[in-house]
Amino acid sequence: MVDMIFTRRDLHQHPEVGFTEFRTASHVVKTLKSLGYQVFYGADAIDLASRRGVPADEQLNNAYERAIRDGADVETLSNMKGGLTAVVATLQGKAPGPTIAFRFDMDALPIIESEDADHIPANLGFRSVYDGNMHACGHDGHTAIGLALAERMTDANFAGTLKLIFQPAEEGGRGAYAMAQKGVVNDVDKLFCLHLGLDTQLGEIYGGSTDFLATTKLMIEFQGVPSHAGATPEKGRNALLGAATALLNIHALPRFSSSTTRINVGLLQGGTALNIIPYYAKMLVETRAADKDANKELERRVRVIAENSAAMHELDCSVTVIGEATTMTCDEGLVELVLDEARKVEGFSSFHHYHKAGASEDASFLIRAVQEHGGQATYMVIGTPIPAPHHNQKFDIDEAALPMAVNLLERIGRRALTGGDTRE
Amino acid sequence: MVDMIFTRRDLHQHPEVGFTEFRTASHVVKTLKSLGYQVFYGADAIDLASRRGVPADEQLNNAYERAIRDGADVETLSNMKGGLTAVVATLQGKAPGPTIAFRFDMDALPIIESEDADHIPANLGFRSVYDGNMHACGHDGHTAIGLALAERMTDANFAGTLKLIFQPAEEGGRGAYAMAQKGVVNDVDKLFCLHLGLDTQLGEIYGGSTDFLATTKLMIEFQGVPSHAGATPEKGRNALLGAATALLNIHALPRFSSSTTRINVGLLQGGTALNIIPYYAKMLVETRAADKDANKELERRVRVIAENSAAMHELDCSVTVIGEATTMTCDEGLVELVLDEARKVEGFSSFHHYHKAGASEDASFLIRAVQEHGGQATYMVIGTPIPAPHHNQKFDIDEAALPMAVNLLERIGRRALTGGDTRE
Amino acid sequence: MVDMIFTRRDLHQHPEVGFTEFRTASHVVKTLKSLGYQVFYGADAIDLASRRGVPADEQLNNAYERAIRDGADVETLSNMKGGLTAVVATLQGKAPGPTIAFRFDMDALPIIESEDADHIPANLGFRSVYDGNMHACGHDGHTAIGLALAERMTDANFAGTLKLIFQPAEEGGRGAYAMAQKGVVNDVDKLFCLHLGLDTQLGEIYGGSTDFLATTKLMIEFQGVPSHAGATPEKGRNALLGAATALLNIHALPRFSSSTTRINVGLLQGGTALNIIPYYAKMLVETRAADKDANKELERRVRVIAENSAAMHELDCSVTVIGEATTMTCDEGLVELVLDEARKVEGFSSFHHYHKAGASEDASFLIRAVQEHGGQATYMVIGTPIPAPHHNQKFDIDEAALPMAVNLLERIGRRALTGGDTRE
Amino acid sequence: MVDMIFTRRDLHQHPEVGFTEFRTASHVVKTLKSLGYQVFYGADAIDLASRRGVPADEQLNNAYERAIRDGADVETLSNMKGGLTAVVATLQGKAPGPTIAFRFDMDALPIIESEDADHIPANLGFRSVYDGNMHACGHDGHTAIGLALAERMTDANFAGTLKLIFQPAEEGGRGAYAMAQKGVVNDVDKLFCLHLGLDTQLGEIYGGSTDFLATTKLMIEFQGVPSHAGATPEKGRNALLGAATALLNIHALPRFSSSTTRINVGLLQGGTALNIIPYYAKMLVETRAADKDANKELERRVRVIAENSAAMHELDCSVTVIGEATTMTCDEGLVELVLDEARKVEGFSSFHHYHKAGASEDASFLIRAVQEHGGQATYMVIGTPIPAPHHNQKFDIDEAALPMAVNLLERIGRRALTGGDTRE
Repeated sequence: MVDMIFTRRDLHQHPEVGFTEFRTASHVVKTLKSLGYQVFYGADAIDLASRRGVPADEQLNNAYERAIRDGADVETLSNMKGGLTAVVATLQGKAPGPTIAFRFDMDALPIIESEDADHIPANLGFRSVYDGNMHACGHDGHTAIGLALAERMTDANFAGTLKLIFQPAEEGGRGAYAMAQKGVVNDVDKLFCLHLGLDTQLGEIYGGSTDFLATTKLMIEFQGVPSHAGATPEKGRNALLGAATALLNIHALPRFSSSTTRINVGLLQGGTALNIIPYYAKMLVETRAADKDANKELERRVRVIAENSAAMHELDCSVTVIGEATTMTCDEGLVELVLDEARKVEGFSSFHHYHKAGASEDASFLIRAVQEHGGQATYMVIGTPIPAPHHNQKFDIDEAALPMAVNLLERIGRRALTGGDTRE
Repeated sequence: MVDMIFTRRDLHQHPEVGFTEFRTASHVVKTLKSLGYQVFYGADAIDLASRRGVPADEQLNNAYERAIRDGADVETLSNMKGGLTAVVATLQGKAPGPTIAFRFDMDALPIIESEDADHIPANLGFRSVYDGNMHACGHDGHTAIGLALAERMTDANFAGTLKLIFQPAEEGGRGAYAMAQKGVVNDVDKLFCLHLGLDTQLGEIYGGSTDFLATTKLMIEFQGVPSHAGATPEKGRNALLGAATALLNIHALPRFSSSTTRINVGLLQGGTALNIIPYYAKMLVETRAADKDANKELERRVRVIAENSAAMHELDCSVTVIGEATTMTCDEGLVELVLDEARKVEGFSSFHHYHKAGASEDASFLIRAVQEHGGQATYMVIGTPIPAPHHNQKFDIDEAALPMAVNLLERIGRRALTGGDTRE
Repeated sequence: MVDMIFTRRDLHQHPEVGFTEFRTASHVVKTLKSLGYQVFYGADAIDLASRRGVPADEQLNNAYERAIRDGADVETLSNMKGGLTAVVATLQGKAPGPTIAFRFDMDALPIIESEDADHIPANLGFRSVYDGNMHACGHDGHTAIGLALAERMTDANFAGTLKLIFQPAEEGGRGAYAMAQKGVVNDVDKLFCLHLGLDTQLGEIYGGSTDFLATTKLMIEFQGVPSHAGATPEKGRNALLGAATALLNIHALPRFSSSTTRINVGLLQGGTALNIIPYYAKMLVETRAADKDANKELERRVRVIAENSAAMHELDCSVTVIGEATTMTCDEGLVELVLDEARKVEGFSSFHHYHKAGASEDASFLIRAVQEHGGQATYMVIGTPIPAPHHNQKFDIDEAALPMAVNLLERIGRRALTGGDTRE
Repeated sequence: MVDMIFTRRDLHQHPEVGFTEFRTASHVVKTLKSLGYQVFYGADAIDLASRRGVPADEQLNNAYERAIRDGADVETLSNMKGGLTAVVATLQGKAPGPTIAFRFDMDALPIIESEDADHIPANLGFRSVYDGNMHACGHDGHTAIGLALAERMTDANFAGTLKLIFQPAEEGGRGAYAMAQKGVVNDVDKLFCLHLGLDTQLGEIYGGSTDFLATTKLMIEFQGVPSHAGATPEKGRNALLGAATALLNIHALPRFSSSTTRINVGLLQGGTALNIIPYYAKMLVETRAADKDANKELERRVRVIAENSAAMHELDCSVTVIGEATTMTCDEGLVELVLDEARKVEGFSSFHHYHKAGASEDASFLIRAVQEHGGQATYMVIGTPIPAPHHNQKFDIDEAALPMAVNLLERIGRRALTGGDTRE
């Protein structure tokens, strides 16, 4: 039996960042198989080439070895080599019917978790043992909810197909696009995504979300030519001049009348020594917009600036997408369905149609894929107080929200998994 | 007879800037013809397409009309339309021999001449009557010397060919290149160029010059797209962002270990109104170097920066050469020849091999052409005190230098125009 | 009697830009006096020091002389010297009551009016005779309406005080602030402002307006030190380096989460000659925001950037406000009043509460002053088709809107000018 | 007895970078004491506060512990804590006379030494055992020469005082200034500095050097305010905008007519994460000039740019000198003396007055201090072929140069250490 609290705390203690969720994903695979689900994972659940911001081999290998040391199933793991940590599971109901999916994200963050006594995971002994990594966004809870839901539904006493999606690398917008490209939601009639927290209180439920920003994360590299800064400065090709020019001009891109936009060069590193013309520089750039086309246009203009800043100083330039999310529109019918069922679940007391996000979320790619194939989707928010903001080293959730969430998802699942028209 | 003082003052009073020397050049043509020279001018003396920085049609036409009003010969003028104000004249000696050339520049500057009583041209009544133009670099004196020399040599009592070159548009480096491209000095065995002043005293003579910098003058234009800065900023393409980026990066080009270099963006103008995204900008850029290849490389890099600054903001860009000069090396033999003859001319008392320039001069193209065709050349400096710097509104020369200069040039000419080998 | 069409066409033919409305304002003064109004103008109607972007003396003097030539009353004019072209007129009703004001702007634009036959003013012979100036925003109509309204109300058959405000220099946000600072609306209980056109059709009426952006227009000057770019580049202090740095960094100021913002450097001019380190540069900058405090913060940061860009290159820097507008909130009661009366005026057929502006308007300062003193205000839009956009050289209005406008304003005035409580 | 080859190889194997020369310096101290020299070291040989670019405590401590592990004398070491690794030793001759000094630098570089078989230290087994550090500039040889010279002179059979200066942290120009500030050369009558290599051949000797550039190395730090790039971009203060602006404008500083100059931003690092406004950035900047005042002026202007780039974006800014060198003029008399003696030393066959440097060297501060106190100094270059350039991972010297160098220095020392006038 899945002990949801135990599972959440075990995951919390073993936080794995995007595409290194080897221990997490192999546990998910093993559990789902043991519950009778048909499980697709590794290269069967994600499109390799569409993944964004995959860590370097060394980091992948270290995490892989760590997972083995910490008891992950070696055979299962072997299909996840290189960071193929996506999992999809299906269960056929006793009658034909629609395909109803739930999506859970599994990855942690590169944050050093607090050791303070007032931080419950530290106090109760389940603080991260993977130094420098932390579940500071509640995905440990999401995954635990997903496994508990899986167990609840094993009776298969429904019409249609239940599909459970466990996604890697949500942080930075790196995993969902590649799962969507693999086609894992093309057959889904109704997709339910969820998040815990987000400035809510226990008992609150939001049936859907608005105002998620489309975003693109880019790594831009400039390659020049070194030379001695004193002896032959004119023989060098200065990568930092190119990068600084790009940085200023990227920030100087116009405001858009058609959409709220954001832009940030979050990191710039270049050069080696005082007396060498800097011949390499790297920058990380993030664009965001309320409108996905505006974001695409902004991304396009960032690329134009980067390429020409490089060419201006006779540098080579490469631009790589390392993360991405799009906008989402939740289907009103599903929003109502969520609220309807929540009213029947003990603990929920405050019912809202839409949560206003203001951030980015790559579940948007799965939602968009479902809708483009004629299905419906929503992104609900389940209330829990948090003692510190998301991505903070003292972030935590109120575990009382977990059983409420599973109860709600079970009701949603059973209501949606009924015969008849698969499309409303 | 040519009255040199009268001629210099008449030219001073009627100063014509580069390629508008209609009155000056037609007077030169008429005088030379009357003295029996064979005269080539208009399209016969200059390559149209190689001219740099030709003024706009309106300015050319206004100057042309002004020349007619002020008595220039209409028929002569008609061959100079569009700014073809170069003149070359030859006189065959009584025996065969080498071709010996002298070069004089004729153009004035866009400077408002002083009206102060201590400025001799104002005091004596020959201040410029062409408001906003002024002979502030001594070219009025050069032209007068050239015509006086022409008259002295009419006896043709020499062996070889005397060639007199009256060049337009020296200021900004715009006329000499086109005359060299026309081939007017290809047959010259010895070319003598001269300048009055340049921080010297009466009685000083420098047989040659060093340290002229190669230079290129560029006009760079950026063409974007206007749009309302409040309503649709993202629809504009901002020419001033491109221009400002180019400006900073042009100045940031590396120092050269191979050569002294200079760079300056002397002018930038762009934009129209506060609420319109600026859709046009223009800048003037000057490169210089002690080494002509370094100057070419610097010019190349300016072009690369301009083009990519434009492309970065999706602007069109055009780069036009509006002026140019190269480096020069005076032939030692001619330097000695000049000093030798100067020692025989009354008034010269201080004899120097080389004047150190530090500026640019497009006679360098004529000198280079002569030397590339196997001839020799020098650029002498003839002393005269000046009450204010070159290009200043109180610039003036001491007219006592003029007869000394003609005496010297006549001696040089007669010595060089002797039979025997044409090449030393 | 005021012939509104004649007046509008006469004004159209004699367009005067901001603070040069000498002929216009003296005509307004004379007419209002002849109708029995008490008229305040010149230094009595505007605070000298608070005016923004006053033209140079030469331009003021030329326009003043032109007004005299074109028949303006010399004695009236003499009180307007230096651009004091504001006019305020009051008429006491037969009973005590509230003070009800209407505001009309009088200035034209520096635009060359079309001569095409399909441009009605050209076709009918009332095209601008002041070359380079044009009424391309309908203020000729506004002024004509104001004078016609003045005439309609001369019976004084109302309770309270009618106040008519004729404002100079609305374009660029230069005149209203100084009239508000003079206190001309401090006693106003209800202020009605209006604009013709703005993408509307004949018969449309909007009772109020939203979305006017707060804006500041700045002139920034950089003063450096010239030096010869070839001989002593290090002795110069380069104003264009300071200006280009400011330009890039001003555009790079962050987007605001608290408000829509806009920023534009509309013009940059600097430098003189290719071979001189540029020692002077000037730029015009415009900030805008939906929130007036965000605009103030943006203006503050532009100043910080300008001052430090200058200091970075050891330049002097001056920043001058040359125009300004604030945000406005129309009072719902007045919006309803306008629509109520419009329903009774023949010709109006399409009734809207709020016109969405998206631009800036300095009537906002008058509206804010009225409201801060306890009064109410609105800014109505009166429909007229326009063959070309505002500020275009073929802009025109449908004169059929003029009598409708006067009929409406008269009804509004008579309704508001009733005894009893002066404040609703 | 000092085995010079053994010593050089032992030092080569244990390379210590600037201010971490704990093992090296304590070996020097112990050897000199055992030879009978009076030894000053630690705080007695260097001015703490004047040191430039002292490593962080952690690096200092690690190196200190490593020196202990590798057998350095603990008591000696204890006086060097915190990087006080300078050593000065004196030996009184049997008669009074002048003070004659020799200067040797001891530090290595942060370079990974080659393991290739064709690299002799790797081949013969004395490759660096301190990974990441390497003697790639010959200072191991310099130190070995110094100790061998010390041994040669122990007879004290001379008139005057012999002073041996072992300097830390020559690389980056960090140690000499602080030793000069301590006054260690104030009493020196003749100072001899030397370098091996520098593109020379075995048998070559240069009595002096020219063309060392003055240089300043600066670390510039920008401190801003973080904020979320999506949620509240306007609340951040962006350190990378300040740094990029500084970088471009530092490179755009004018060329100097008064001196060759160089400038380089060798490193820039800033920002943390994609979605955080970068709140910290660091850059390393190097200025150089053939004229020390030009270098000071360039340094001053870099500071002005840095401070105002920071202020422009409301950042804090700190500028720290982390290295420095000045220009030097060798005394002709000493140059001749060196060459004179070299002619008597077997192996030297090619004699030159001046080596042309083109780089920077902080011995210049010691030379300047000697000369300012009335003494004389020179900087000789002793020939040795090098298989790869200085600072390359395959740099090496020909050890055959070492005994030639000691023979030469002994002759120089004995010749200079004679009675009579101490000043020539």
